[in-house]
Amino acid sequence: MREVYVAGIGITSFTRLEYPLIEIAAYPALMALRDSSLDKIDHLYVANMGAGRLNHQTGLASAVVDNLSLTPAGADGIENGPASGASAIKQGFLAVASGMHDVVMVIGAEKMREVNNLEATEFVATLTHPLAEYIYGVTLPSLAGMFTRLYMEKYGVTSRHLAMVAVKNHANAMLNPFAHLHEPITIEGILDSPEAATNNPFVADPLRFFDCCPVSDGAACLILTSAEVARKCGRPMVRLAGVGQATDTHAVHDRKDPTELLAVREAARQSFAMAKLKPTDVNVAELHDAFTILEIAESEEVGFFPKGQGHIALEKGLTKLGGQLPINTSGGLKAKGHPVGATGVGQAHEIVQQLRGEADKRQVKNAKIGFTCNFGGFGNNVVCLTFVREN
Amino acid sequence: MREVYVAGIGITSFTRLEYPLIEIAAYPALMALRDSSLDKIDHLYVANMGAGRLNHQTGLASAVVDNLSLTPAGADGIENGPASGASAIKQGFLAVASGMHDVVMVIGAEKMREVNNLEATEFVATLTHPLAEYIYGVTLPSLAGMFTRLYMEKYGVTSRHLAMVAVKNHANAMLNPFAHLHEPITIEGILDSPEAATNNPFVADPLRFFDCCPVSDGAACLILTSAEVARKCGRPMVRLAGVGQATDTHAVHDRKDPTELLAVREAARQSFAMAKLKPTDVNVAELHDAFTILEIAESEEVGFFPKGQGHIALEKGLTKLGGQLPINTSGGLKAKGHPVGATGVGQAHEIVQQLRGEADKRQVKNAKIGFTCNFGGFGNNVVCLTFVREN
Repeated sequence: MREVYVAGIGITSFTRLEYPLIEIAAYPALMALRDSSLDKIDHLYVANMGAGRLNHQTGLASAVVDNLSLTPAGADGIENGPASGASAIKQGFLAVASGMHDVVMVIGAEKMREVNNLEATEFVATLTHPLAEYIYGVTLPSLAGMFTRLYMEKYGVTSRHLAMVAVKNHANAMLNPFAHLHEPITIEGILDSPEAATNNPFVADPLRFFDCCPVSDGAACLILTSAEVARKCGRPMVRLAGVGQATDTHAVHDRKDPTELLAVREAARQSFAMAKLKPTDVNVAELHDAFTILEIAESEEVGFFPKGQGHIALEKGLTKLGGQLPINTSGGLKAKGHPVGATGVGQAHEIVQQLRGEADKRQVKNAKIGFTCNFGGFGNNVVCLTFVREN
Repeated sequence: MREVYVAGIGITSFTRLEYPLIEIAAYPALMALRDSSLDKIDHLYVANMGAGRLNHQTGLASAVVDNLSLTPAGADGIENGPASGASAIKQGFLAVASGMHDVVMVIGAEKMREVNNLEATEFVATLTHPLAEYIYGVTLPSLAGMFTRLYMEKYGVTSRHLAMVAVKNHANAMLNPFAHLHEPITIEGILDSPEAATNNPFVADPLRFFDCCPVSDGAACLILTSAEVARKCGRPMVRLAGVGQATDTHAVHDRKDPTELLAVREAARQSFAMAKLKPTDVNVAELHDAFTILEIAESEEVGFFPKGQGHIALEKGLTKLGGQLPINTSGGLKAKGHPVGATGVGQAHEIVQQLRGEADKRQVKNAKIGFTCNFGGFGNNVVCLTFVREN
């Protein structure tokens, strides 16, 4: 397989965006074209989860490639629930690695705030098992609540640990101009003060309001290409060195031990194996913290910390900016936001910025190896990517 | 790039299917596994256009890979409107050609009859331009009607030619046990008799009822693999030799001459170039006749007949079974049916059956080279595939 490099990147603010979805998708693509100095592409992938239902639009990729005046390049939509973004990056990787295409644009885009939060939650619930979960009213917060309870009982994670994830990621988001939530929070404010019960009510016990990501609009873009083209683009050489993807039972209750995220473990293993690297080699990572517990659990399953020790590493400050392995420097889904189909591309955008040394106030010093974990369903389809800065 | 072969195929009836979408999708996959003698896969692609809206389901690929007990294989959904099927085959091609995966399953599945025909038509209209067409109430039949009128004026196509396509494809469908419409029709019955006005009313003048495909449920599956694995499977060696894809302006009125289907022309050119073949080499083809006019127009644009001569070739019987180049031996979208996300995989299924010599009463003698054209949007995103029988 040919080696695959990132030639250009772009992103919108993750927030409420009052533009049509095709405009939201096109904006970071223009940034990425300018960033790469490229003016044409061979193929476009657009990751999106909800346009058919939320925006009454299908064939989004065809509309976007036309909106960008990039016809006759082929264009396809990729859907893998909240992991659609990383899945689209995987397709872009295959298109370049195979030698079929030289320049492939990958956009992740979502416009969720067309509907209210209740309908958005119902929409996201459509990714649960259609016959064993969805029809009984299961939602993602409810699955995450049950998962959190099991995790607490088994490993001694407390509400305080969950709050530490939120406080850390909100602090990181303060340094990210594209983040959805620019609102510093404290343990005192969301857990200990008399107002905490009101400020931070339960969503799905033991998960509270500040344990859950917001509902965001937004888009991000990566342009993938061969080493030869990337060198001509003149940007720092960031290689997409590892791609892993794995599935697990679609229904959470079918798992022998629901606290074991086997798809995360396998996708990470594949990604590191392809990159010929170890989890301990990673300098900066974006993990899929749609709920605070997931950052802790994924930090273990991808191999950064032993199982059951993620909350200890968090407590020690290893995962904050300046720590041994900063996680979610962008603010994560928790505070950067979670426009579902865009999230995986947004994670990669953050890692490329970090590896290029362009992350400004949230820059991780000498970051050479970065990693992303994009978590589809409730862990039933996970894509992990490893990026390496080469020059 | 590695060469890519078809190891196994499967299909459901295209009709109204009273099963959950995941069961519809799984059925042809089991047939394809049995056909290939394979019992595991490396990756699954599921082509689907409407599950998010019509079936309130996202992450369909994750649900299907679990339903088939094929976890932990990765799984992704592919959406390119009515060309989703061929787009998914393209992704499967890239996954095998790159060397990343050895065995890739491609399923196309759609359950459209969950809603009534009016809502289905509205749903399909969501693939038009969101700002320039959809919001003004444009539907696919209306675009096809205007296209047909222009084509009639420019090239002398008549309502009789359109009816000839319908009669031919209904006759072919009589020989296909999986076709939606098993209803022989005649020119007399749908055009000339006193009852024709009632039996075959206008849908979008000059298009009548029998010029339009039905709304179908259904699914089809192809397993793609390397030459090495394909040889072990022991089925006839059918190679996916050419893959082409191209886009055109998303809004039809943006085209200089709307009767020119530039994306069809370019996708076919790419597909033949990769296969090192010419249009005249083709023995059997499936073209995307969602409306009768499209079979005529595509037969010209892919290079089978000169521009403006497709209806003459039809008139001469060149495209019927036993003719020089049989088109839509399956019955086509017109009579086999059009479960939108499944259609491209269904087209490939027919061609593989023909090239294997397994098409029974509709078998084209000595068919060695087959071709499919899967038409997304109103010609804004087209995928063309060329298949070659090798042994």
